[in-house]
Amino acid sequence: MEGGDHLAHERNKAEFDVNEMKIVWAGSRHAFEVSNRMSRLVASDPVFDKSNRAVMTRKELFKNTLRKSAHAWKLINELRLSDEESVIFKYFMDQPGFLDLHWRMFVPAIKGQGTEEQKQKWLPLANKMQIIGCYAQTELGHGSNVQGLETTATFDPQTDQFILHSPTQTSSKWWPGGLGKVSTHAVVYARLITNGKDHGVHGFIVQLRNLDDHSPLPGITIGDIGVKFGNGAYNSMDNGFLMFDKFCIPRDQMLMRLSKVTREGKYVPSDVPRQLMYGTMVSVRQTIVSNASVAMARAACIATRYSAVRRQFGSQNGGIETQVIDYKTQQNRLFPLLASAYAFRFVGEWLKWLYTDVTQRLEASDFATLPEAHACTAGLKSMTTSATSDGIEECRKLCGGHGYLWCSGLPELFAVYVPACTYEGDNVVLQLQVARFLMKTVAQLSSGKAPAGTTAYMGRAKHLLHCHSSIRKAEDWLNPAMVLEAFEARALRMAVSCANNLSKFENQEQGFSELLADLVEAAIAHCQLIVVSKFIAKLEGDIKGKGVKNQLKNLCYIYALHLIHKHLGDFLSTNTITPEQASLANNQLRSLYSQLRPNAVALVDAFDYTDHYLGSVLGRYDGNVYPKLFEEALKDPFNDSVVPDGYHEYIRPFIKQHLRSARL
Amino acid sequence: MEGGDHLAHERNKAEFDVNEMKIVWAGSRHAFEVSNRMSRLVASDPVFDKSNRAVMTRKELFKNTLRKSAHAWKLINELRLSDEESVIFKYFMDQPGFLDLHWRMFVPAIKGQGTEEQKQKWLPLANKMQIIGCYAQTELGHGSNVQGLETTATFDPQTDQFILHSPTQTSSKWWPGGLGKVSTHAVVYARLITNGKDHGVHGFIVQLRNLDDHSPLPGITIGDIGVKFGNGAYNSMDNGFLMFDKFCIPRDQMLMRLSKVTREGKYVPSDVPRQLMYGTMVSVRQTIVSNASVAMARAACIATRYSAVRRQFGSQNGGIETQVIDYKTQQNRLFPLLASAYAFRFVGEWLKWLYTDVTQRLEASDFATLPEAHACTAGLKSMTTSATSDGIEECRKLCGGHGYLWCSGLPELFAVYVPACTYEGDNVVLQLQVARFLMKTVAQLSSGKAPAGTTAYMGRAKHLLHCHSSIRKAEDWLNPAMVLEAFEARALRMAVSCANNLSKFENQEQGFSELLADLVEAAIAHCQLIVVSKFIAKLEGDIKGKGVKNQLKNLCYIYALHLIHKHLGDFLSTNTITPEQASLANNQLRSLYSQLRPNAVALVDAFDYTDHYLGSVLGRYDGNVYPKLFEEALKDPFNDSVVPDGYHEYIRPFIKQHLRSARL
Repeated sequence: MEGGDHLAHERNKAEFDVNEMKIVWAGSRHAFEVSNRMSRLVASDPVFDKSNRAVMTRKELFKNTLRKSAHAWKLINELRLSDEESVIFKYFMDQPGFLDLHWRMFVPAIKGQGTEEQKQKWLPLANKMQIIGCYAQTELGHGSNVQGLETTATFDPQTDQFILHSPTQTSSKWWPGGLGKVSTHAVVYARLITNGKDHGVHGFIVQLRNLDDHSPLPGITIGDIGVKFGNGAYNSMDNGFLMFDKFCIPRDQMLMRLSKVTREGKYVPSDVPRQLMYGTMVSVRQTIVSNASVAMARAACIATRYSAVRRQFGSQNGGIETQVIDYKTQQNRLFPLLASAYAFRFVGEWLKWLYTDVTQRLEASDFATLPEAHACTAGLKSMTTSATSDGIEECRKLCGGHGYLWCSGLPELFAVYVPACTYEGDNVVLQLQVARFLMKTVAQLSSGKAPAGTTAYMGRAKHLLHCHSSIRKAEDWLNPAMVLEAFEARALRMAVSCANNLSKFENQEQGFSELLADLVEAAIAHCQLIVVSKFIAKLEGDIKGKGVKNQLKNLCYIYALHLIHKHLGDFLSTNTITPEQASLANNQLRSLYSQLRPNAVALVDAFDYTDHYLGSVLGRYDGNVYPKLFEEALKDPFNDSVVPDGYHEYIRPFIKQHLRSARL
Repeated sequence: MEGGDHLAHERNKAEFDVNEMKIVWAGSRHAFEVSNRMSRLVASDPVFDKSNRAVMTRKELFKNTLRKSAHAWKLINELRLSDEESVIFKYFMDQPGFLDLHWRMFVPAIKGQGTEEQKQKWLPLANKMQIIGCYAQTELGHGSNVQGLETTATFDPQTDQFILHSPTQTSSKWWPGGLGKVSTHAVVYARLITNGKDHGVHGFIVQLRNLDDHSPLPGITIGDIGVKFGNGAYNSMDNGFLMFDKFCIPRDQMLMRLSKVTREGKYVPSDVPRQLMYGTMVSVRQTIVSNASVAMARAACIATRYSAVRRQFGSQNGGIETQVIDYKTQQNRLFPLLASAYAFRFVGEWLKWLYTDVTQRLEASDFATLPEAHACTAGLKSMTTSATSDGIEECRKLCGGHGYLWCSGLPELFAVYVPACTYEGDNVVLQLQVARFLMKTVAQLSSGKAPAGTTAYMGRAKHLLHCHSSIRKAEDWLNPAMVLEAFEARALRMAVSCANNLSKFENQEQGFSELLADLVEAAIAHCQLIVVSKFIAKLEGDIKGKGVKNQLKNLCYIYALHLIHKHLGDFLSTNTITPEQASLANNQLRSLYSQLRPNAVALVDAFDYTDHYLGSVLGRYDGNVYPKLFEEALKDPFNDSVVPDGYHEYIRPFIKQHLRSARL
């Protein structure tokens, strides 16, 4: 079994051009080349080794992450990497650390909410990393509800300062990454109070630590919130807490683009439209959707390769067994996840376009499409991250017992990924925002106002509420118009049904809170429609490479039809399709699995992940799994001695039967 | 907020007698008293402290577990705990360790498969723990398929010995708990070869280590397989690998109850019925179902209490916010899990009865009910462990961001629980066994043979295949006969539909493998019916205590109706119920949630878990969550210094802008 490519026979089966698929996956030849180059640059540098993370103590892991961050920043400068390159370089480092928060949260907050003078003062320092910043919003007792934050920033006209204060224990900042041990500065969100009046939550630039010896400034209590899920994962990050005891900052450190406080303590909103802030949110959530596709792809890659390596049953008395990837139960769980990775990739690509479009409109003060764009990104963030978390754990189970080993990479991937369901908006809270938007859209249908963008289908309510699916045979489920109509009719009918049920309540808000669960389901149906429709739209474009389009078609319909099966109750209870049509969809799905099967390994090769990035013995490119599992085990420091520490005190007394007198 | 019971207002709302519910949960007053006493005995002993597990290195954690095991065994003997008490005592220690494998696998294997002489020789040693044993079955390349094991045990008539050998790397034993560092002996499963003939897999008692210095015997390579999922979890256990290089054992160390090898090397099966072995399997799986209810209850207890403590939204500008347990989205996710804990508890209780019944029948050589009992325990093991794994992670998400902290207890619980989906039979493989049994039962329906036990309902196929549900209003969904009929009709129709589809294939095995996914769903439907029917049966019994029965009724129907919603596609596509009836079920479910709400905290109090066992700051009995989260954070060794190790090398060079020249 040693040496060579143990998956060569799988790769030879592929019916499409893998190199062209790599470009489709990356989005463009340029994107592929950058990603390919950066991932290999990281992989080839021993400083970025990840294999020892599980055996480090928290302090060692943290120090090692500091080292990686410093080394990365040095390389980025030495190699003069472009912004695009350095973002991707940091991504492939694959270790949460303070760089993420500084660049993705602290700097953008100043850019977005600072005045020109503030940007001129702070951005050069931040860009050179002479100051290191984090984003201090969440409090111990306040997560999703930003308006419920308790920290106060009271303007003191005597000193021309804001007094930051944490009035209760629950008002401590809690969770901000990079806060606990590293950051010198933070953007802190606090309730602005001037002349005894509470103006709600605003952002402030606050220095936390002395720049000479790194000690916290007087009036500031700061530390790490402790161990988190997983061995490595976010334990490489100093998520922190922060309390203010009447800590003063100059007035000009309030971020004043949207509103300012004058020398006299007068609160003056600026004429900059509040809607501009939504642009950032769309951008952040678009990145999260993109990352969902990467994480789902990573898990699917590991599970697919190992399912091709692993054999179980199918023979008697020591003969060669069946590859587990050949079992329909395995295909039925794995292939929809592989298809989801591609589906999320393309909807993420479309979200990039949406962000550009929104930005251009915002610059032209056109806010008309903003609510729809906002709902759509919120919903897609929620839907893709939930599906990806579940998908990673499912991939782990698909690897059998060995998926439970840390070196399978899947426990670590799960632990590091799941917070995506909570940060940047709790997934259930986000779907309720989508639901509110859908209810508003439904309510306006009769007014003649045509819904736009991803809700345009609702404009065809008359047809969609009453149409009958014309599916007659299994192959009809490969007809894009018929599939789309089914998803549109289901989504619309669920939304309209919610609206009807809401209208039975005298008090709309009470109705809304009573029907929350149904509303979430309607929102998810809408989001799934978006993903399916963007995948179908992708297929309508120009796709190069032998067999590539055909593979994408298979993936698209696997994605759509597995959703129909999974949410069959929705489709049947809205009379969108009949049980017979559902059964045809299942038949078609099985046939698609058979068509995908010979291409499975090549389809995950197309992600172009290095073994370094995958970080999985089971997902190795060469499939040489079993000898490497042994190597990993032997490397564990626990195997330094055959007789374990503790033998004399705690094992030998059993065997020698003098436990009773032993001192434990 | 400090001191006192922060959940007293919740406890005062309860509409039932919590103390009586504790007895119902435990199964009897006696069981409650034992469990209450043992859990407090463990909780009060500082040796069993669990709070520091996340900050120990693997070696420290392992040594600490050895210490706990030795201390536990010493106490069990000093206090002369009964077998019943000591099992429960070890359970509340809540830390996987070698004691589990020795008592639950090694000793029972000798009892079940050894001859009288073998039991007389080995059991006294094992019972006094003069030898420590493990159970070495799984191999690196062979998990679920025991018949595929590669290790050989070849009889050598010259020396009257078996030569144990690992012919390949994939034949290494891999995973057995207690093997890596502790066990002196193992029951090893290997292919028996005599006179060149392979007689399949048999068990052997094998000494692994020298009893004087604990070193592995010559011919044996042994070690630990490395880090597993989670910080603590199974990392306290030495799951190991083992290779034999022509290692010899005396002939009388083959476990010979079922078949023996004579001095001449002749293979002689005994007249002991093979079916006796299934009794053990039923027993082990019954315990797993019981444990599923405990784990689900533990997660639900944490999530319920913290949902009552935590507040989000529902007010403006710093007013008191709404308890998250009051949101229908939270109830819709949480209450079915709470109901599942109770449902699994009662089906586990019934399985105990089934095991007694099976044992009595086996002793009377009545094997008629064995296939049904076997299918039923396999299916329930699979169904309850899958639901519990998912449920624990859902409870973690229900705690918001703080659920991601190790001290929430939920990451640890998830990591330590999920292997239950894989060990003692992979959950998908087990459902396929159930499906095979169901297909056989369906095939025999026309033969006039009445199906028995949990498949008795299939005898009413004529009615169940054609009946229409008579549900007319939401309250009808509280009618036990109507609910049962819906679950029976759904399960039967799915099984019959699979059988019909199978019959379309010329080759039955090919059909089976093509329809695997549908077969699994049919098996799950059957298992859910069993759980619902046993819960309903429980309600028909005598239940004491004010309001207790009423609460159990609510839980029962929440369990049943949430399943109907979750698997609505099954119920609608088999025409078991109509979309209108489904909608009535949803209305009823919402109303049940409102009825459960004031009782939620008391219903989890009824589990009678100590704070030690829960191991969760969020799930504390007194609800004093936030100050304790702070305490936990401050205890972390990472907070020993405010300026972290690594500052001078890796942070200061950024701030002082001499990173370029820094040596990293």
